[in-house]
Amino acid sequence: MSDPRPILLVIGILLATLGLAMMLPAAIDLAVGNPDWQVFGTASGLTLFIGMALWFANRGFTGDLNMQQAFLLTTLSWAALVTFAAIPFALSPSMQMSYTDAFFEAMSGLTTTGSTVIVGLDAAPPGILAWRALLQWLGGVGIIVMAIAVLPMLRVGGMQIFRLESSDTSEKILPRAQAIVGSIVALYVGLTAICAACYWLFGMPFAHAVAHAMTTIATGGYSTSDLSLARWDAPGVQYTSVVFMLLASLPFALYLQALAGKPGIVVRDAQVRGFFMVAALVTGVLAAYLITANLMSGEAAFRAAAFNGISILTGTGYATHDYHAWGTFSVGVFFFAMFIGGCAGSTSCGIKIFRFQVIEAAARTHVQRIVHPHGVFTARYNRRPVPREVISSVMSFVFLFLSLFALMAIALSLLGLDSITAWSSAATALANVGPGLGPTVGPAGSFQTLPDAAKWILSAGMLLGRLELFTVLVLFLPSFWRQ
Amino acid sequence: MSDPRPILLVIGILLATLGLAMMLPAAIDLAVGNPDWQVFGTASGLTLFIGMALWFANRGFTGDLNMQQAFLLTTLSWAALVTFAAIPFALSPSMQMSYTDAFFEAMSGLTTTGSTVIVGLDAAPPGILAWRALLQWLGGVGIIVMAIAVLPMLRVGGMQIFRLESSDTSEKILPRAQAIVGSIVALYVGLTAICAACYWLFGMPFAHAVAHAMTTIATGGYSTSDLSLARWDAPGVQYTSVVFMLLASLPFALYLQALAGKPGIVVRDAQVRGFFMVAALVTGVLAAYLITANLMSGEAAFRAAAFNGISILTGTGYATHDYHAWGTFSVGVFFFAMFIGGCAGSTSCGIKIFRFQVIEAAARTHVQRIVHPHGVFTARYNRRPVPREVISSVMSFVFLFLSLFALMAIALSLLGLDSITAWSSAATALANVGPGLGPTVGPAGSFQTLPDAAKWILSAGMLLGRLELFTVLVLFLPSFWRQ
Repeated sequence: MSDPRPILLVIGILLATLGLAMMLPAAIDLAVGNPDWQVFGTASGLTLFIGMALWFANRGFTGDLNMQQAFLLTTLSWAALVTFAAIPFALSPSMQMSYTDAFFEAMSGLTTTGSTVIVGLDAAPPGILAWRALLQWLGGVGIIVMAIAVLPMLRVGGMQIFRLESSDTSEKILPRAQAIVGSIVALYVGLTAICAACYWLFGMPFAHAVAHAMTTIATGGYSTSDLSLARWDAPGVQYTSVVFMLLASLPFALYLQALAGKPGIVVRDAQVRGFFMVAALVTGVLAAYLITANLMSGEAAFRAAAFNGISILTGTGYATHDYHAWGTFSVGVFFFAMFIGGCAGSTSCGIKIFRFQVIEAAARTHVQRIVHPHGVFTARYNRRPVPREVISSVMSFVFLFLSLFALMAIALSLLGLDSITAWSSAATALANVGPGLGPTVGPAGSFQTLPDAAKWILSAGMLLGRLELFTVLVLFLPSFWRQ
Repeated sequence: MSDPRPILLVIGILLATLGLAMMLPAAIDLAVGNPDWQVFGTASGLTLFIGMALWFANRGFTGDLNMQQAFLLTTLSWAALVTFAAIPFALSPSMQMSYTDAFFEAMSGLTTTGSTVIVGLDAAPPGILAWRALLQWLGGVGIIVMAIAVLPMLRVGGMQIFRLESSDTSEKILPRAQAIVGSIVALYVGLTAICAACYWLFGMPFAHAVAHAMTTIATGGYSTSDLSLARWDAPGVQYTSVVFMLLASLPFALYLQALAGKPGIVVRDAQVRGFFMVAALVTGVLAAYLITANLMSGEAAFRAAAFNGISILTGTGYATHDYHAWGTFSVGVFFFAMFIGGCAGSTSCGIKIFRFQVIEAAARTHVQRIVHPHGVFTARYNRRPVPREVISSVMSFVFLFLSLFALMAIALSLLGLDSITAWSSAATALANVGPGLGPTVGPAGSFQTLPDAAKWILSAGMLLGRLELFTVLVLFLPSFWRQ
């Protein structure tokens, strides 16, 4: 067993940061005179105290992390942050939430999933709405930093394909992270500000525009209204959403390269191209269906298709329509789109575009070998040969993803959920999308009425999905602890 | 383009055999005085004539087949057999079936799927019932011969792992097939006879016992009653079914080795062990559920779980219960069990046990590499290293299977089918299981009411699934034809 102190040190720093962040909703509630400010103040004090205590008790242990410590740190820090982030929800007298509900809401927030157990958002205190937006926003930037700086080192599920330099070793995780965190955060803040300005220009009140910008860039999907974006039914608002959901699903590292004077890299990137093709396909298919089925016409059909399709594809989870009324065809499209997700290195989740591309490259090679048994063929991704280890990692990831989906769906059925609720909840949690399908957990419903056990299963699913499955699951291997 | 004559020769021989087989239902209908005997006589004459014509027009072209010819032969022979096998259904005045329905029924028969469009089996002429049983029985033995002698040469979807000798080349397909066809057919006939005797001993009338034995060994699932095996509600009948469905899902090549004095090979085989573990798991989970949910108790619960669970797992498709009444949990188990299937080299279909085992071996290696980044690990299957090409073939197969499932489900939704009908029909066709889920196509329903377009999509799905997907799909590649 490795030294736990470097892990506790980083968790301390993260919790202290979370405690500081809680002061923002406290200030907002205080400004509007809502008594919830005391709840946020108390939670902030508690979180800050525990964070600072961990920090100072372990200060000085800042050396390089070994692999075991890196894995433990990743999972434990997300679990610790969710545990404390849930406190304001649990304590707020205006929300009346159980700790199970509070934990689910905080997990759904930090993992940028967007499933909610809260009904009555329009009447909720502004501090709570701000806290939900802030959680998704912080979770979003956390995931980008992790995907760029940590996951490639952990060689999880094929993410090693994104190592920036071939000489990277696991011992360099933290120094590398620090080197790019600054640029990533600046970019993230900038995109959020532009998105908020657009929402505001198109008629959304300022506070709502900022809150939605934060959950758009995070592809999180928490809204300030039970009606989601249907409350601001302006084409400009919805197109703003579409544009920034797409931007937030691209690899953030590529933006840095583009800003460094190499914009061609973004255009030529296989994952970016694949993602836009899938987004266009989903939008096109849904729009064509809406028009031929005489449900909508012209621009309205295109907008409804683009907004709701891309919202599900990117794992954001906003809705303008209860698309169950569109018939089973579109429900089928939404169900399968859930699994796809955006690009690795973005805030979106799901199986992710590059994994489908690696599989497609391998399948193409397989077919070539069938047709020309004596030829030699190599699977390529982004114009480079795919290391065989990556192919098998990607296959393992997809297989584990689908197995966990099946297990969760069956477990939820066992708790008495109907099939569509069980299956779509399992998928939406694991892929960090947000809404499920069907009358209970669909875009017009909420997860409030599910049994507590289902909420814990779904919370676990969200964490697993967000941390690329293997990062969490290796902790349960005896061989991991024998190192 | 290769010489088509060797292909036409084999198709001619197969059609002539099919024409001969049609004389059996003709004789049965003649014996009981049913006018349908004329239909079978006509169809038999037509099929025999065309088969013999092809045979004699191309006689002498018996040389070795090249790869292109082998692929063409495989798909075209199945398509030709189904086309002609449908004729008696289409012409029978007592059935009143459209050619679409007849084609669907024949495809479902020869691919040993077991989905039916016929309602009123109990009153159907004995010739029709015999023809349905015979089609599945012939399809079953055809698939075993193909899986042992042809598919490993075509290197399709990882089946190359079952090449009997490493020196096999595609030029030796037909000679090798002839060498083992005799033993396989003898074994198949023997198992069918024992199964029929057991059914008969446990109280099933002789003709029904023979018909059910033929569709049990074929893991086909066509019954002589709309009630399926619920019409003969005797424990002995159902346990007979369970035992022979299991036996029919094991690799038939292993039986030959066991009979040659090496029974240990069967017991030690990874696929056999894995299959029995999955069968035990499905049975155990369903039985435990039936008991804890107070739906059944004791032996009745075990029997209902074993019979219906193994029927779906092996792709047979018999039913004794409408398991929708058991709640969404068991529907979820049945849905996922559909995809699994039995062992390669048996009459069962689905993704098949060995592919899950290859994926599991690869995933295990992936996790070992995550935990020990500097170690060297090799995926093993059946105590031998898995060639990397096989891992990528298996991954390609599973990915293509799930993609086709998604596409078919969405296409069926577009035709107006509800979600559960669309999804379960797509799965049951591609995995050659038989019944779907839900009120329309579930174990108590039939495919009769589906639109014609859905029946053609499902027929294509059955053929794709039966021929391991790639065998059919390579024919649509331009590079296949440029050889």
